Amino acid sequence: MPVNPNAPIEITAFLWVPEFAQGVVRDLRARWALEESGLDYRVRLLNQERPAEYLLEQPFDQVPCFSDGEVKIFETGAIVQYLGEKSEALLPRDPQGRYRAIQWTYAALNSVEPAFINLLLIDVFFVGKDWATQRRPGAEDFARQKLKRVSEWLGDKQCLEGDRFTIGDLLMATVLRFIRHTGLVAEFANLDAYLKRNEARPAFQRAEKIAAG
Amino acid sequence: MPVNPNAPIEITAFLWVPEFAQGVVRDLRARWALEESGLDYRVRLLNQERPAEYLLEQPFDQVPCFSDGEVKIFETGAIVQYLGEKSEALLPRDPQGRYRAIQWTYAALNSVEPAFINLLLIDVFFVGKDWATQRRPGAEDFARQKLKRVSEWLGDKQCLEGDRFTIGDLLMATVLRFIRHTGLVAEFANLDAYLKRNEARPAFQRAEKIAAG
Repeated sequence: MPVNPNAPIEITAFLWVPEFAQGVVRDLRARWALEESGLDYRVRLLNQERPAEYLLEQPFDQVPCFSDGEVKIFETGAIVQYLGEKSEALLPRDPQGRYRAIQWTYAALNSVEPAFINLLLIDVFFVGKDWATQRRPGAEDFARQKLKRVSEWLGDKQCLEGDRFTIGDLLMATVLRFIRHTGLVAEFANLDAYLKRNEARPAFQRAEKIAAG
Repeated sequence: MPVNPNAPIEITAFLWVPEFAQGVVRDLRARWALEESGLDYRVRLLNQERPAEYLLEQPFDQVPCFSDGEVKIFETGAIVQYLGEKSEALLPRDPQGRYRAIQWTYAALNSVEPAFINLLLIDVFFVGKDWATQRRPGAEDFARQKLKRVSEWLGDKQCLEGDRFTIGDLLMATVLRFIRHTGLVAEFANLDAYLKRNEARPAFQRAEKIAAG
């Protein structure tokens, strides 16, 4: 278990999150990558009311921040990529394999995630509002279109780029979890199996258990 | 002028885009990075009706795709990062400088862009729809919050991480352009000046002129 209060790697996380956010807070991505890498880390827990100075570390007032004494960064895409540099288990070393994996981190976070977060916000934050009720069918269709694109790409492959798990799969799986309150992923049998396969990885299991703390 | 039909680097772009999309199509990001790097490239132009096989290159049916004979990728975040590996003008070489810049590419595309695209969609695609009219003030406030965060971070710095322009600034500037149809950026004097400074770069000027055809 790589949580170690003396580790040089530190991430920030929340002491408590509301129920809808449990299991989808972004520190899970960093923890999962750390568990896959086998790197020890410590956690600095923050209250929901962050001190104003936290903006100097994380301008968007989110978690996690990452530091290992050499590099201090925020944004889970950058953090998991940096961990990929440390661990070949997460990121291939040949240029094509490396950049195909990096490409999928951006695809997960920019081409897919916004459609899912939009649906999550409609269903959780704005539920019952008139505009949200009117918009929901269109937002659901848009999310379904994204799933269709990823499902068609994935086909019968184990991972987005073949047999090998990378940071691209790690982020795509966490992105798919944003709509686990709907039945949408299950409409695509290969994606449903892909998500379950990734969630069954021992490193994910450990990370999720610790994150749920 | 690095557009050269015999260059090993190829990007895809659209032959024609509707007026609202002119100047914000994502191939501009790749062109700008290529102009900053001084690397020659050629352009494969696509009709709005792409052949079904294009999904094998770009699963989300977008532009640009990038290839240089060694690496073939999509997602502008990955493309500009790859070009940063080729050109120190875009990406510092020390680990902290490198990953601070990479972090801002993810921040631009994941923490900022979705709020702006949401507003753009409301104002262009869904304008006049009842839900869009109801939702617009909240969507505008959310976009303004993002601008406030970036503005506070930027302060009186020239670039996001000090004096030096990186791929993080390149992507952030193109993201700010998604809401140029509103007056929102101008509400933050330092961001307005930052965007104008970046748009005044000779490489941007060349890229925009060529992208506009």
